[in-house]
Amino acid sequence: MDDATIERYADLVVRFAANVQPGQVVAIGSELGKERLTRTLAASAYRHGARFVDVAWFDPHVKRARLLHADPETLGFVPSWYGDRIRALGAERCARIGLSGPVEPALLADLDPALVGRDQLPFVKETGDVVNDRTTNWTAAPCPTAGWARLVHPDLDADAALAALWDDVVHICRLDEPDPVVAWEARMDVLGAAAERLTAARFDALHFEGPGTDLTVGLLPTSRWISARFSTVDGLRHLANLPSEEVFTAPDPERVDGVVRATKPLVAAGTTIEGLEVEFAGGRAVRIEAAQGAGTLRSLAERDAGARRLGEVALVDGDSRIGPLGRPFYDTLIDENAASHIALGTAYGFCVDEADRARTNRSEIHVDFMIGSNEVAVTGVTAAGERAPVLRDGAWVVR
Amino acid sequence: MDDATIERYADLVVRFAANVQPGQVVAIGSELGKERLTRTLAASAYRHGARFVDVAWFDPHVKRARLLHADPETLGFVPSWYGDRIRALGAERCARIGLSGPVEPALLADLDPALVGRDQLPFVKETGDVVNDRTTNWTAAPCPTAGWARLVHPDLDADAALAALWDDVVHICRLDEPDPVVAWEARMDVLGAAAERLTAARFDALHFEGPGTDLTVGLLPTSRWISARFSTVDGLRHLANLPSEEVFTAPDPERVDGVVRATKPLVAAGTTIEGLEVEFAGGRAVRIEAAQGAGTLRSLAERDAGARRLGEVALVDGDSRIGPLGRPFYDTLIDENAASHIALGTAYGFCVDEADRARTNRSEIHVDFMIGSNEVAVTGVTAAGERAPVLRDGAWVVR
Repeated sequence: MDDATIERYADLVVRFAANVQPGQVVAIGSELGKERLTRTLAASAYRHGARFVDVAWFDPHVKRARLLHADPETLGFVPSWYGDRIRALGAERCARIGLSGPVEPALLADLDPALVGRDQLPFVKETGDVVNDRTTNWTAAPCPTAGWARLVHPDLDADAALAALWDDVVHICRLDEPDPVVAWEARMDVLGAAAERLTAARFDALHFEGPGTDLTVGLLPTSRWISARFSTVDGLRHLANLPSEEVFTAPDPERVDGVVRATKPLVAAGTTIEGLEVEFAGGRAVRIEAAQGAGTLRSLAERDAGARRLGEVALVDGDSRIGPLGRPFYDTLIDENAASHIALGTAYGFCVDEADRARTNRSEIHVDFMIGSNEVAVTGVTAAGERAPVLRDGAWVVR
Repeated sequence: MDDATIERYADLVVRFAANVQPGQVVAIGSELGKERLTRTLAASAYRHGARFVDVAWFDPHVKRARLLHADPETLGFVPSWYGDRIRALGAERCARIGLSGPVEPALLADLDPALVGRDQLPFVKETGDVVNDRTTNWTAAPCPTAGWARLVHPDLDADAALAALWDDVVHICRLDEPDPVVAWEARMDVLGAAAERLTAARFDALHFEGPGTDLTVGLLPTSRWISARFSTVDGLRHLANLPSEEVFTAPDPERVDGVVRATKPLVAAGTTIEGLEVEFAGGRAVRIEAAQGAGTLRSLAERDAGARRLGEVALVDGDSRIGPLGRPFYDTLIDENAASHIALGTAYGFCVDEADRARTNRSEIHVDFMIGSNEVAVTGVTAAGERAPVLRDGAWVVR
């Protein structure tokens, strides 16, 4: 991609999505292999008044060395200063930018998935607390890489694949609009209105029905639907994900029942999980099967008491720019915005009132997987047992 | 360089120089462009029982973006968690490995040296405290890179230059010995014995005489000469620099007088300083001139009250493997071991007894520059004014 487009993208991430303020410290979570965009983001942040840009560079090769050679009993260890840094980012009201997308998607594919699941880095569990505290203006955005491009566009040669993935990112981030900020504000207005109607309907549960899927997800009395248009405790607006096409809430972790088939692959702990099927009973995932990578998800689900329960349910309509592309991106940030999804693990506590906060799920993991498509109907069920259509053929029908 | 040699080098750094213990956390200070050796070090550390390897990857391109675009008033700012991490490395008794050598030596050469001097990262000032506390077993070792190799071997093509620099590193790190550990123990025995004789002589000052140099460096009553064979408060031995050919101490920052001409170029804050001449009066550097890069050193010397005074004086004999190569490496770690040197800035407090601790120099900087050669005579001067030769033609003559 040409420098000017990458600079426009970096400016959209820094100014609109993260909404970096003059004088702020900006933390960027990046990875070796993402140098070009990371440096362009840093330059953009400094040009817009950042006091300091702190890039945390993660190296999956060092992680691989750990998985190969370290004592397996130590794989859950994380140095104290990793969490301390995240807490300081909150306490000092910093901006946070994360870059998604794998650099070498198959790097850990030959390793025992049970081992791989024990080391969750670069995810640091304190991040969940800082998100819930709403003390940082943050966003996550995709960073095309050559390795990722080969996965998404396997029929193209290396240069063409990378160019095609950049084109995808330009499109789904609405950088091909005359004014991407105006386009995003309009899209977020639609999603915000849908979220308000869903919250007002006060459903007791959602029912997902489609091929291989018959799943009921209970909601909490104060479950509030929200879009990724967040604001901090200080009133600073930011778009938590770029792109974002979803509305989501925290479900009742005790009331999830039925079976669900994933409609997209997912990448978790460095492994691609394909053909996933999960059965829930009384809120717990009691059976996890997959054509590939089931062991990694099973290992993640062993992490703690909340790792088998849901922390998120999210709905995505057919106007998403991602769904119509009709291809998996093997990156949760993008794929979750192609389709409705659920997540095993920790909830966003701010999706419910204080009264229900203790009932939301708590875990060290948060793993999204996609369960929606135009073939999956979503229906709201009230406490009285009345049913009301919510999504049909990918369109909002909730009133 | 072949994988097997790089693995032998990594093992020497991890097991002998840093002396990593089973169960330790190992912090590696690296830079983008040093991936191959860094990953080999990480694998070696994990194979030898490390609990975790925490690589801090520094990116000089992000630093350049800061220098170009940030408010100049903010260039001294360092996030609180940088120092907190260093302090935690000490408190948790971690191992530390730093990789020296530039990746892109000219990256900051076009920038105002006064600006460049304000941002000292990746150096973090708390590192000095942790070194003085002797709570970490640490080492610094060179990492050949293509950009550095072009500087050291400008007449060779890129591949040959990198191969030649690796050959240099293999030689100066005594990896070409049948048993490098045995060779290093023997060399450190010689340096340790010289250090003991120097300490026993209780000189009041050292006098350096040579072309362009007539400098007297006062010593403190308890100035103790030591080699880089350190041990921690817990009795763990480590070689602070690999290679190391020096013995050093903390001088009296109030009693340095005369003029000194650097005998090698130095790289400081990303800039190469050549043809340096410094004049001292009453301990202070009162005049700093150079054929190139003087502004950077002048800016560093403005940092604080101690930045114009000496924190270290070091002696190197002619058996150094570096001096005979007869070429500058543009890396202080190596060049300082080619020749006797002094350093502006903070002292190693452990070089003196508690009684003199408060008299040693304190600063946020520590910049070594080489003042010795076979043409520079070093003479000890006692408090009574008696003179005794210390180094002549590169040989120890101190009794």
